[in-house]
Amino acid sequence: DVKISGYGRTGLVYYEDDGRLPDGANTTEISSRLRMDIKASTKTDNDLEFGAQFRMQWDQGDAGVESISPGMISVGYGGLIVYVGNVIPAFDGAPLLKQTRLGVFERSWGGDPIGRFFLGADKGYGRDENRVGVALRYTRNNLLIRASYVDPDQSGLNESASGYTEELSFAVNYKWDDFLEVTAATAQNGAGFEDNDLYFAGARYTISDVARVGINFVDNGRQLHSRQGTVGSPGNTVTIYGDYDIGKVTLSGYVANNSGEWERKQTDNSFGIGANYDLGGAVLGASLQRDYDERLYADMGVRFDF
Amino acid sequence: DVKISGYGRTGLVYYEDDGRLPDGANTTEISSRLRMDIKASTKTDNDLEFGAQFRMQWDQGDAGVESISPGMISVGYGGLIVYVGNVIPAFDGAPLLKQTRLGVFERSWGGDPIGRFFLGADKGYGRDENRVGVALRYTRNNLLIRASYVDPDQSGLNESASGYTEELSFAVNYKWDDFLEVTAATAQNGAGFEDNDLYFAGARYTISDVARVGINFVDNGRQLHSRQGTVGSPGNTVTIYGDYDIGKVTLSGYVANNSGEWERKQTDNSFGIGANYDLGGAVLGASLQRDYDERLYADMGVRFDF
Amino acid sequence: DVKISGYGRTGLVYYEDDGRLPDGANTTEISSRLRMDIKASTKTDNDLEFGAQFRMQWDQGDAGVESISPGMISVGYGGLIVYVGNVIPAFDGAPLLKQTRLGVFERSWGGDPIGRFFLGADKGYGRDENRVGVALRYTRNNLLIRASYVDPDQSGLNESASGYTEELSFAVNYKWDDFLEVTAATAQNGAGFEDNDLYFAGARYTISDVARVGINFVDNGRQLHSRQGTVGSPGNTVTIYGDYDIGKVTLSGYVANNSGEWERKQTDNSFGIGANYDLGGAVLGASLQRDYDERLYADMGVRFDF
Repeated sequence: DVKISGYGRTGLVYYEDDGRLPDGANTTEISSRLRMDIKASTKTDNDLEFGAQFRMQWDQGDAGVESISPGMISVGYGGLIVYVGNVIPAFDGAPLLKQTRLGVFERSWGGDPIGRFFLGADKGYGRDENRVGVALRYTRNNLLIRASYVDPDQSGLNESASGYTEELSFAVNYKWDDFLEVTAATAQNGAGFEDNDLYFAGARYTISDVARVGINFVDNGRQLHSRQGTVGSPGNTVTIYGDYDIGKVTLSGYVANNSGEWERKQTDNSFGIGANYDLGGAVLGASLQRDYDERLYADMGVRFDF
Repeated sequence: DVKISGYGRTGLVYYEDDGRLPDGANTTEISSRLRMDIKASTKTDNDLEFGAQFRMQWDQGDAGVESISPGMISVGYGGLIVYVGNVIPAFDGAPLLKQTRLGVFERSWGGDPIGRFFLGADKGYGRDENRVGVALRYTRNNLLIRASYVDPDQSGLNESASGYTEELSFAVNYKWDDFLEVTAATAQNGAGFEDNDLYFAGARYTISDVARVGINFVDNGRQLHSRQGTVGSPGNTVTIYGDYDIGKVTLSGYVANNSGEWERKQTDNSFGIGANYDLGGAVLGASLQRDYDERLYADMGVRFDF
Repeated sequence: DVKISGYGRTGLVYYEDDGRLPDGANTTEISSRLRMDIKASTKTDNDLEFGAQFRMQWDQGDAGVESISPGMISVGYGGLIVYVGNVIPAFDGAPLLKQTRLGVFERSWGGDPIGRFFLGADKGYGRDENRVGVALRYTRNNLLIRASYVDPDQSGLNESASGYTEELSFAVNYKWDDFLEVTAATAQNGAGFEDNDLYFAGARYTISDVARVGINFVDNGRQLHSRQGTVGSPGNTVTIYGDYDIGKVTLSGYVANNSGEWERKQTDNSFGIGANYDLGGAVLGASLQRDYDERLYADMGVRFDF
């Protein structure tokens, strides 16, 4: 059986120019994404479930879909699934880690982990064509365990180069009857950088049918993103967030504190607020955020899943 | 819901060598195309219709499908649809504009607009990865209105370069009870070239159940295609065309006059005749044409839609 | 009608290092493949069956699916199908030719043809973007005939270059009541190399419900693969093979003798054994082989079709 699913989103994105943009560059742009996942599956006589997946994703700024994602292959039995290939690493897939995201563009400049760790490849591995991942996912009742191994280059030829260490990551999530959910996760040698170890702990509490609050702690490891330069450290981030439903509208917000240091950093505090309106099959959303470089970010748009 | 549709066509194409082909080059080749559109759609509770689309297209001469098209996202309500991303610009999508095309390869060397304007991208944006389009399509009874805006580079960094002006285009079509149909359209700053303004007016009249005639006028703007060189102008084109059914066969033809000038141009008159045979689910077709460079072109092939 | 089918496979592959690998290179790697074929078809009123196909294939070592295959278009009527575009050439598609392959990775280092001939393009034509193929397939009762023509460059501009001759190939297969099957095939100017003519004859006999044996003879033509260097010849190969079912397990094996010469060749004899376990919707398999360079090869893995 083969099915195609995914989502489309489009809208306007504004990012304040603090002087680093080239002369004349626009700060507001139309931004869209179209993602389609082609998922194949089959079941054997003894109830093994095999699956496979390609992803086609286009983002505004891409000339086209110049690379479909590398393939992912899985086999499951009962609550256990093993993935090989272009897997979602355990840290990247840790529940609650990205819960502070706002709007239909699902960004959280303050609350998202700043450090580096492997992500599932939406488009391609780039220069690391010999990357390989193995992951497992185990669920039993309210417990979820993820573990993953990503070798940036299994050829063995780049073992000593920076960024070519194997990443190991783990995540555990537990839910108590829909009112409390906690996650703990770590990525060791995040994104293949030796001793770049990330840790995450998060909890989310359901106050009532219409209100939830949560707190996330992330130790971002040692490795800055290239957009933050090479000097400094990503530090630790503590984020408090919550959301509140008013009819079809969900208001959300976060306040985050980060202890890291990098060239452009202006403040330890970041925050964001957002509102999503449920159209019943699609979502209208908007967010307003300020990042650690003290730049304002705003977006508004629409997203629909299929 | 996700559906894949498209068409395949294959056949022989002949193009007379008037001396510009390299020594030994073949003038007759096998030519094929395979196009698949992956269309996703969903409807909200309040009857908004969201859609999204990728196109995979291979043409003879491509080593493979090296780029799926950029994504297109749409939202419709009643007779109005708004498109964002890789849209079909209004001029490109103007009804009747391409009605003079013949055969299964759907070419009209004389009647097709010679000037430059933005097309929907079948494969990719090439170097203009920051291109963005917004279009709308409105239908009510027998009236169709299209409008579009295409910015070749929304980053703001190429504003003064040639070919980086925003194109605005419009088209209006009206049908009187299936016997008369008229279209008027314009592209301002066609294909992003400043003051390259194209205009189109066309009418098509149904004489009887089996016969139709039409006339197209195109002001091709100022910009020659690269295959016509850089010196000269595409001029205006007037085309008279018609088609006539004999059972399952449709005979078609056009005569076109163009006032433009370019290096290779030999004549102001171009013409073509064609015949299509309906196989009931596929079409056999052939055409014979002479272009303004006084070269003969001929094709024959088969096309089927799925 | 459009359908997606294909298979996924993953497992471990070992290839003995005989000194040619770079220092530190791994000899055992995770290897996976994900293949999806998108097949479109339609039937006309007079029972012509049109078809078209794209292939998306990712193999371990690819950064992503950077090229979907060139398109293939077909039309069939009764027992005859004609293919245009990215066809499966007749020699490549000759039944029994690849029957000596073992395991889920379907490799036969000893029994597979060593010479060069055109294959269907899973990913792209590479530099030969003007390649074109035409093939036909005829079946009647127990008889199968294939013929194909592949022009590496129909532009006519590379006619005298090495590797740019047209390949013609043929294959005939006949089955006697499921107990005996024979194939004869040839590729003339295999892979476009002039006078690189390959010949194949094979027979397979069903001893009982659970046992089959076969013999293949391949004249590999004149052209070595690049991995075998440029000096020498691929010679002739004779392979004896068989398989035997024990419940859900199928044991297979081959012994092959090759008369060719190339720099790394150490022995004229190659052999392999394999075992596949049928999971009822998926297959577990393993193989152990020794090639003509006297290197050991081993694989084990799982494959499922969808």
